[in-house]
Amino acid sequence: MNTVARPTHAENEVDRARSGDVRALARLLSLVEDESPRMREVIRDLLPQTGQARIVGLTGAPGVGKSTLTGALVGAFRAAGRRVAVLAVDPTSPFTGGALLGDRIRMQEHATDEEVFIRSMASRGHLGGLAAATPRAVRVLDAAGFDLIIIETVGVGQAEVAVASLADSVVVLLAPGLGDAIQAAKAGLLEVADLYVVNKADKPDAQQVVRDVRNMLALGSFEPGGWKPPIITATAANGPRDEGVAELVTRLDAHWDWLCASGELKRRRHARAREEITALALATLRDRVTKDVDELAARVADGTLDPFQAAEEILTEAED
Amino acid sequence: MNTVARPTHAENEVDRARSGDVRALARLLSLVEDESPRMREVIRDLLPQTGQARIVGLTGAPGVGKSTLTGALVGAFRAAGRRVAVLAVDPTSPFTGGALLGDRIRMQEHATDEEVFIRSMASRGHLGGLAAATPRAVRVLDAAGFDLIIIETVGVGQAEVAVASLADSVVVLLAPGLGDAIQAAKAGLLEVADLYVVNKADKPDAQQVVRDVRNMLALGSFEPGGWKPPIITATAANGPRDEGVAELVTRLDAHWDWLCASGELKRRRHARAREEITALALATLRDRVTKDVDELAARVADGTLDPFQAAEEILTEAED
Repeated sequence: MNTVARPTHAENEVDRARSGDVRALARLLSLVEDESPRMREVIRDLLPQTGQARIVGLTGAPGVGKSTLTGALVGAFRAAGRRVAVLAVDPTSPFTGGALLGDRIRMQEHATDEEVFIRSMASRGHLGGLAAATPRAVRVLDAAGFDLIIIETVGVGQAEVAVASLADSVVVLLAPGLGDAIQAAKAGLLEVADLYVVNKADKPDAQQVVRDVRNMLALGSFEPGGWKPPIITATAANGPRDEGVAELVTRLDAHWDWLCASGELKRRRHARAREEITALALATLRDRVTKDVDELAARVADGTLDPFQAAEEILTEAED
Repeated sequence: MNTVARPTHAENEVDRARSGDVRALARLLSLVEDESPRMREVIRDLLPQTGQARIVGLTGAPGVGKSTLTGALVGAFRAAGRRVAVLAVDPTSPFTGGALLGDRIRMQEHATDEEVFIRSMASRGHLGGLAAATPRAVRVLDAAGFDLIIIETVGVGQAEVAVASLADSVVVLLAPGLGDAIQAAKAGLLEVADLYVVNKADKPDAQQVVRDVRNMLALGSFEPGGWKPPIITATAANGPRDEGVAELVTRLDAHWDWLCASGELKRRRHARAREEITALALATLRDRVTKDVDELAARVADGTLDPFQAAEEILTEAED
């Protein structure tokens, strides 16, 4: 086998990705989506080149127009000369690991733009696996020199909270009728937002959604010098007449300035690293713990052993 | 302190709950919502009296009409002479632990019916905490002699998958325009359904939702003698003219017969016990692991240590 023609170091691939080689970038992203010794090597090697990108999370209930707004944001940031990458993360499906990519087609107008990179990711593994491969993909894009990385997720609830731990700025998208403010509050969405966008602002009930969010924000307390999430109305339709997109860009930039000046950026990135390390350690422990659980599970299902005793027995076994 | 007037054994409380003492039941449920040695004692003591109840999960996107359908189901099962309990579980909010209870008011017509017990649960703790207290609450209701326990959850995605692991039968509720079939598919909802209900069937696009689900089911493969999820249309409005509710009850009974005859019930309950034990063991491990992560997280955030190395160091420390 001729090993000369094949890149032997991750640095080579990263260098190629930095210089705009989309294929090298795609190879790196495929590599870090899976668990392997080679993946760990790549992450370790590209680590010194990370830390420069801004990471924006964009989330909301199904149907509020996330993909359309993402497309409009990409256009606005591109117009400002920035290199933009989009990671579209589908919620974990523990039963098939599959993902439907239909929405992506809406963004294909940017697909031929070399400074925009769009990647749909299927999330892997068990509950909480949504967050597993994404930080690695973010590192790759960061090392590849993108100025801005948008993580778009669909879903309501835990998926959004997972986004929050990965992004520097979290945009929560609402729309009248679809995932309204009360439902969003139930899902814990309002608690993770740095910026609110009420989309489809031309629809009759949009102002009610704005009022609901405003009332909920009024219940919260904001520290002096802290960040108070703005509420932006938009009618993002992926065209030159997009309303609200320019304001969102301005507010995102203001949030970034605040993050840097207040020390919050450093705090968030520390929390993110903490979450990532903990998740990795727990994944290893989960493998150890689930090995011999079957016999105990049968006794718990029969009602002859209580689950706490069973858990203790597993932990004792795992430590041997 | 006079200890005579106070019940000293969980059995007493369970006996009272079984005989219809709603206050005793409420006390037991409050007790098992929290982590405590007393909670473990209660679960252990009531374990022999569990295993008789049927557990039905009802889930779907925000706004599809879950609470209304739950109310209609309660009415139908009550008319058939069964004792029914409802657990309404709100998604985890790791930031406040709070829950909004607004929807519950719609079910208050059943609130004075002694054989119906309705409980809203706030889910506790970290991501995945949604599933933590619910199995314990289900055990209490099971031991208290309810024939049918309905677990209703709001949200799209991981929360639904968590419901699936707790219920014997999973009903996925869809509605035209709100959380349509494609969005539900993305969230992994279609993969956990034993029965589909397309609600608001009087709306114009309802038949399109039915077709979408049918087309997706046609892509799946079903084993001979297996269960093929039915698609039921409904216009549940919590009144005597509810369309589709009687059919849902019939189909749920058919699913229960299939579960018992095929051995699938035993398999599911085993898997459920397995999940519960694993989650308990992991929660203990998480506490150990997160103790000394801060210094390592700072180095990972700086890019001077890779996360895999950090995770290994934590595991080594935790084992000492």
